[in-house]
Amino acid sequence: MTQEIFYWIDIVGTFVFAISGAVASIDRRLDIFGSLVVSFATACGGGVLRDVIINQVPAGLTNLEYLLLIILAVVLSALFLKRLRKLESASLFFDAVGLGFFACFGAHKAFVYSHNVELSIILGVVSAVGGGVVRDILLGRIPVILKKEIYASAALVGASIQITGDYYFHSALTFTWIGLAACVTLRLLSIKFDWKLYAIKS
Amino acid sequence: MTQEIFYWIDIVGTFVFAISGAVASIDRRLDIFGSLVVSFATACGGGVLRDVIINQVPAGLTNLEYLLLIILAVVLSALFLKRLRKLESASLFFDAVGLGFFACFGAHKAFVYSHNVELSIILGVVSAVGGGVVRDILLGRIPVILKKEIYASAALVGASIQITGDYYFHSALTFTWIGLAACVTLRLLSIKFDWKLYAIKS
Amino acid sequence: MTQEIFYWIDIVGTFVFAISGAVASIDRRLDIFGSLVVSFATACGGGVLRDVIINQVPAGLTNLEYLLLIILAVVLSALFLKRLRKLESASLFFDAVGLGFFACFGAHKAFVYSHNVELSIILGVVSAVGGGVVRDILLGRIPVILKKEIYASAALVGASIQITGDYYFHSALTFTWIGLAACVTLRLLSIKFDWKLYAIKS
Repeated sequence: MTQEIFYWIDIVGTFVFAISGAVASIDRRLDIFGSLVVSFATACGGGVLRDVIINQVPAGLTNLEYLLLIILAVVLSALFLKRLRKLESASLFFDAVGLGFFACFGAHKAFVYSHNVELSIILGVVSAVGGGVVRDILLGRIPVILKKEIYASAALVGASIQITGDYYFHSALTFTWIGLAACVTLRLLSIKFDWKLYAIKS
Repeated sequence: MTQEIFYWIDIVGTFVFAISGAVASIDRRLDIFGSLVVSFATACGGGVLRDVIINQVPAGLTNLEYLLLIILAVVLSALFLKRLRKLESASLFFDAVGLGFFACFGAHKAFVYSHNVELSIILGVVSAVGGGVVRDILLGRIPVILKKEIYASAALVGASIQITGDYYFHSALTFTWIGLAACVTLRLLSIKFDWKLYAIKS
Repeated sequence: MTQEIFYWIDIVGTFVFAISGAVASIDRRLDIFGSLVVSFATACGGGVLRDVIINQVPAGLTNLEYLLLIILAVVLSALFLKRLRKLESASLFFDAVGLGFFACFGAHKAFVYSHNVELSIILGVVSAVGGGVVRDILLGRIPVILKKEIYASAALVGASIQITGDYYFHSALTFTWIGLAACVTLRLLSIKFDWKLYAIKS
């Protein structure tokens, strides 16, 4: 049951990230293949970086499901671009859920293979935000997550809670729910109340 | 015999990619060491990305031959820059051959180590176009292949044909020739007739 | 004794690189989390790239010490930004020491795991300058080391001396001192006398 819920969260999260990549690439007037590449990099880039670092064959590159999902995301973005832009609040919600899920799941996977606390937390954050960073580098802009609101820091909270569970309680699953909830709540509250991290004055 | 032909195609392809990196870096006024780095990244970057993902020590970094080839490419670019610019149609031809070869050879190598169809096709494309993407990121521009004519998609066709052979017929070599021919033909026709991929309107 | 000296050189080098990342990120008005990420990438990015290529779990991601060092660097940069800018000559000196140390140590580590001369020299340079390249890509500028004075080339000299020792004399340590001294001297002389590498005219 939980397996199934996580499966669907993964699918929805990947799909939302793919949409965000597709929309950004259309704004930059890439051709359809370029849109596919950027969409793919956004959705799977974080997980690929994580898997390369823990020396696993990247799940995002060996799973036909993800590829089909990304093609679907690009096609839908092309067809319904205007309507998508109006759905911003819905997409922010799903993006937050994807962020929390990837942070917890990525941290957990890294912990299973490395048993190192620090590495696992860092790779949880990398899983969650790495795709967006790759997208922005490909499109030639400073990665949004380095300047934006509370985003990577929400992923850090989720990943830390997950690893607390893995390390002290050997119970991944309960802590995945807590970490997911904490990350999503923090992210959504930060949007609602326009919280920002302090930027050092130069 | 075929081994020898492939050896020379690899050499020529690497050399042409190295020239393209050297010329781009000279246009950006990098110093001679910067030109070497960008030229190296263009020629070997795609293969290094592929080898890192399939957990092999990158061939491009352990082979003195490539390094000498790249030094030669930078020196020749510096000496004959003006004449090189006039040779555009010749360089487009060799670039297309390199593209096709790297796509097929990269896909084949990935298949040998991973036995995964999807991963091998993706890594074939990465081998062929990854170097150009790294070059453009280093030089601070949106990767040309995301906006340009039929380029990465020609590599996709070549890699797919190669993997069809590897998977269904266990005969890499015949399909390398077919994939190479298909990729080069598609690429050259797209230049001649100015074919472009559809760009989604924003 | 030597172990201890190297330990402290590593700490000081990492710290100086972290400061350089923090200052650059503050100049770009990133928030505090973005500053941490850029500072971390500058200090540990080169080593992580090296370890990914030789298939080792990255030391920079599994060592809590580095993380604390980077947090300290960001906090100090935020508090003493103006004074830091005045310390430029001191920071150039420590940066040169860090460069030399990372070049030699990175080359040596790569040689221990790969026993390949060319790969080890390249990865020594990557260890020394990779972090700065990642920093500049994240901040959307052409990597300074591709255009600047003698920097990556000093790392190349250091790494080559180190690997000469590893390969011909099986004596890493003496050659680490020689390589470190050569790299630092070359770098500092190039600053003092404003030496530049030849840039090819376009």
